Amino acid sequence: MKNPTVSIVGATGLVGSEIVKILSLRKFPFGRLLLFSSGRKAEREVAVSGQAMPVVPFAIDALREPGICFLAAGGDFSRRWAREIAALGHTVIDNSSAFRMAEDVPLVVPEVNRGDLVGRGRLVANPNCSTIQMVVALAPLHRVYQLKRVIVSTYQSVSGAGLEAAGELATQSAAYLEGRDLPARALPHRIAFNLIPRIDVFDCEGWTGEERKLMNETRKILGDPSIDVVATAVRVPVFRCHSESVYAEFGRELDLGEVRGILRAAPGVVLADDPEKDLYPMPAGCVAKEATFVGRLRIGPASRRGLSMWIVSDNVWKGAALNAVQIAEELL
Amino acid sequence: MKNPTVSIVGATGLVGSEIVKILSLRKFPFGRLLLFSSGRKAEREVAVSGQAMPVVPFAIDALREPGICFLAAGGDFSRRWAREIAALGHTVIDNSSAFRMAEDVPLVVPEVNRGDLVGRGRLVANPNCSTIQMVVALAPLHRVYQLKRVIVSTYQSVSGAGLEAAGELATQSAAYLEGRDLPARALPHRIAFNLIPRIDVFDCEGWTGEERKLMNETRKILGDPSIDVVATAVRVPVFRCHSESVYAEFGRELDLGEVRGILRAAPGVVLADDPEKDLYPMPAGCVAKEATFVGRLRIGPASRRGLSMWIVSDNVWKGAALNAVQIAEELL
Repeated sequence: MKNPTVSIVGATGLVGSEIVKILSLRKFPFGRLLLFSSGRKAEREVAVSGQAMPVVPFAIDALREPGICFLAAGGDFSRRWAREIAALGHTVIDNSSAFRMAEDVPLVVPEVNRGDLVGRGRLVANPNCSTIQMVVALAPLHRVYQLKRVIVSTYQSVSGAGLEAAGELATQSAAYLEGRDLPARALPHRIAFNLIPRIDVFDCEGWTGEERKLMNETRKILGDPSIDVVATAVRVPVFRCHSESVYAEFGRELDLGEVRGILRAAPGVVLADDPEKDLYPMPAGCVAKEATFVGRLRIGPASRRGLSMWIVSDNVWKGAALNAVQIAEELL
Repeated sequence: MKNPTVSIVGATGLVGSEIVKILSLRKFPFGRLLLFSSGRKAEREVAVSGQAMPVVPFAIDALREPGICFLAAGGDFSRRWAREIAALGHTVIDNSSAFRMAEDVPLVVPEVNRGDLVGRGRLVANPNCSTIQMVVALAPLHRVYQLKRVIVSTYQSVSGAGLEAAGELATQSAAYLEGRDLPARALPHRIAFNLIPRIDVFDCEGWTGEERKLMNETRKILGDPSIDVVATAVRVPVFRCHSESVYAEFGRELDLGEVRGILRAAPGVVLADDPEKDLYPMPAGCVAKEATFVGRLRIGPASRRGLSMWIVSDNVWKGAALNAVQIAEELL
């Protein structure tokens, strides 16, 4: 594909609008750019490289000319349209969870498993935000030490729940500081100065959808169903960037100097780990950065096969829009 | 001891002032009450059961009459004075970390190891806040299933860093919402809408003091040096109550119904775990409550010896002032 037509469904949403921005920033060589909203709302405009571009309600008829189609309009939309759009000859990069675990659909983080794109169909799934940043950090270590098991606790920002949730954190926080309590709307409980240990819905064994995604998608992307992943997903009062406390256990003993060397050389990773300089990643410092930041590296204390680490990345960028664009770049 | 003289050093601090409050709330049968500040600052007053009580600078001469002495004035003060006050015949309950790992000093959470108070000296250490709530939840399970290993990630409120840090979260948050960035003073970085994965100082292996406390104190309180504890301690923008994501591995397979039964019957524990009712503990709901709240119970997914849980408690109460008063109640 050279200078393909690029279409984006959900172009006014949190992820879709960042896809538009990142395509421009990275000078993605598209021919035409078609922007759709998922609903039937009145037309809107978004800025593309400083120029106003119309956003029109999605219509399958507007996609007659094959190209690359980003879907960022939620699982229901993707389930209804993704395969139909792919059948028209489009390569579809789906940001929803609808097809991530489908056997015929590759689930891709380019730094980790770009090879999974080869010889597969026209539908590609963009993984869950908290999974992406974790596998970017774990994959290079897995190759050397053989990952056996991961125990991860997440600290996820409100932007993972959409634009409305981000606004809710701001208005609730301001109200709380004035002694008022605003009701929760976008999130299930008050998030201002609070934590919500539930993201997505519960299954019958008590795990949430977000936790299952982390557990299942990690194995699929790393291509090893034997890896044991235990996840606890928590919403925190942070606007943007997800953080993760990860304990990873490997088949071989670790050497901290070697671990640092592997992470320093790993694509998409920035090692930010220097206790003497009080250096470690924090969400406030990772907004609109492309990398996955890794710090707080510790081996043990009991087993030299155990590595504790702290992983932060921008969930809207690497966790969603940027990874989708990087998949498209691989396909060119 | 009947109606002992009770003295509190650090009575105007965050923990000391709560000790004063809790002694009244629980109708602790003290005779005289002596309130000290640790510094040489001008005299102040605090309210005790609605009456203004003077707080005077600490002077060892004021402690001639033996009784119970709470120290809540930091490690340096305790290292200087704790053993000297005990030598005068006082039972000293020390809230600092100075003597927690000393072999001759019991480290006590009454629900867990009140027996350690028997036949020991006059100095008792109050454990670290994040350790207390974890062992309250783990000890009853340990007795049945034999705890082998704990991997814990904390979500610790700013009140753990003192009154100034709590004020900093409020002023920084208000400023941030108005587009201004206030410098960090009480905490090492901005905490408003951010996370700081460092509490206390780093050691040469990259662990922080808070993480070492969790790892070492848990073993001492549970009386089993073979338990492997791996901790990551993180400061979150929450005013009060610490939360913990705990993965615990036991020597025997678990049954979720039995686990619930054990926790429901455990002293100091409130089981708040009902996915169908969207019930789980959150810090905003646990302020000034005595219990340790446990929820998000999940077994597996790979091993039936592994239990994931979410533990929340008021770090100023059960994590400090309340536990200290409960130790004093045991001693009566």
